[in-house]
Amino acid sequence: MISIIGIGPGEKAQITPLAIEALKNSEVVAGYTLYIDIIKDLIEGKEIIATPMMQEVERCRMAALAAKGNKNVAMVSSGDAGIYGMAALMIEICEELGIREEIRVIAGITAASSAAAVLGAPLTHDFAVISLSNLLTKWEDIEKRLDLASQAGFVIVIYNPSSKKRADFLKKACEIVMRNISGDTMCGYVRNIGREGQTHKILPLKELKDEVVDMFTTVIIGNSTTRVINGKLVTPRGYRI
Amino acid sequence: MISIIGIGPGEKAQITPLAIEALKNSEVVAGYTLYIDIIKDLIEGKEIIATPMMQEVERCRMAALAAKGNKNVAMVSSGDAGIYGMAALMIEICEELGIREEIRVIAGITAASSAAAVLGAPLTHDFAVISLSNLLTKWEDIEKRLDLASQAGFVIVIYNPSSKKRADFLKKACEIVMRNISGDTMCGYVRNIGREGQTHKILPLKELKDEVVDMFTTVIIGNSTTRVINGKLVTPRGYRI
Repeated sequence: MISIIGIGPGEKAQITPLAIEALKNSEVVAGYTLYIDIIKDLIEGKEIIATPMMQEVERCRMAALAAKGNKNVAMVSSGDAGIYGMAALMIEICEELGIREEIRVIAGITAASSAAAVLGAPLTHDFAVISLSNLLTKWEDIEKRLDLASQAGFVIVIYNPSSKKRADFLKKACEIVMRNISGDTMCGYVRNIGREGQTHKILPLKELKDEVVDMFTTVIIGNSTTRVINGKLVTPRGYRI
Repeated sequence: MISIIGIGPGEKAQITPLAIEALKNSEVVAGYTLYIDIIKDLIEGKEIIATPMMQEVERCRMAALAAKGNKNVAMVSSGDAGIYGMAALMIEICEELGIREEIRVIAGITAASSAAAVLGAPLTHDFAVISLSNLLTKWEDIEKRLDLASQAGFVIVIYNPSSKKRADFLKKACEIVMRNISGDTMCGYVRNIGREGQTHKILPLKELKDEVVDMFTTVIIGNSTTRVINGKLVTPRGYRI
């Protein structure tokens, strides 16, 4: 059995009992070093497959092969393992290796939910989730999605807004959506959600453009109805019933 | 203090410890009758404000007024309280009533995450979340969003795909996206996620169009890369690093 588990934003109180049980029942736990560290007291004494970032394929291979040896394997991702997480890659690699162990995905709180909760309630209506990482998606596709999502009036949640190599990607993204929506549109971001040093900020799009953010930041760009109520970022539910 | 709490898809093992703690610390619990029932053993002996569906505004007013009386109030929503949930309305109503109690939103597992986990891993890349309910959004806006989201190559998660009054809305939605994407695009849906009688189905868009679904169903429409691997709906991560 292979369980692909989302451990939520980072604090233990946001890991579901289902995920905790699956971790406890596993014999081997695989994951990115940072995430393994968050759950270390839940997995004491278990065999650990921890590899640094960028070694996702190798990590999945090692985990899949461990499962083939009849071990109960847990593969952990932060947030939800199914949203920009390891679930799809794990399923693909099991297929490639001819491993037919049962695979189950255990959902976790994704950053769209946890960032929205910190900021207030910006996701009450339709929204789009876009990663600015061009490692696995072409930048032209990302650009097209930002453009069409802002034309459509979606609130836009941005994952991976920046990294050392992509320092100006959030600026570029803001410039694209500002073709379609006002620079006064209210936005917000949360850094280190659920972890030590969590910070957040609510600000208009025209100021967001020049903010310095990092890869541990989740950004939410509002739509034309999003506003600040009592210090919180809110997209009202629309007309009242 | 007012806590607006997402209780996840329906099974208790998917409610986070943070949400359980907030429920236990509350004196008054407000919610739609069906959700109150799911958590009844967690809130024994507490004052309950349960109102039927469609009385959201009144339920929020009652909860807000209870908080003004210095009580610890919990407002519950299924899934994530911030995604098509009660969080925004609660913040708006507190503002209208001049209630300045602290409000915090506690995220839960939203149906996009839980449905994706049941089906496999369809949300590995950018996606859009659209509700087909035209109670709070104009149908023209919904139609525009379906059209642009499918042009953009988003996987599309559909909440509230149908109801008695809107029996043909999923069919209409499928017809709109089929202007932009192939009828062979792989899709799936999950009914009664995390609850008794959970069922799911994976099928091409051209067949999804004619399925009968209800308001307890979450639908996921794939993009051009989505495929079925070993019985699971998967949107691969893209080219390998």
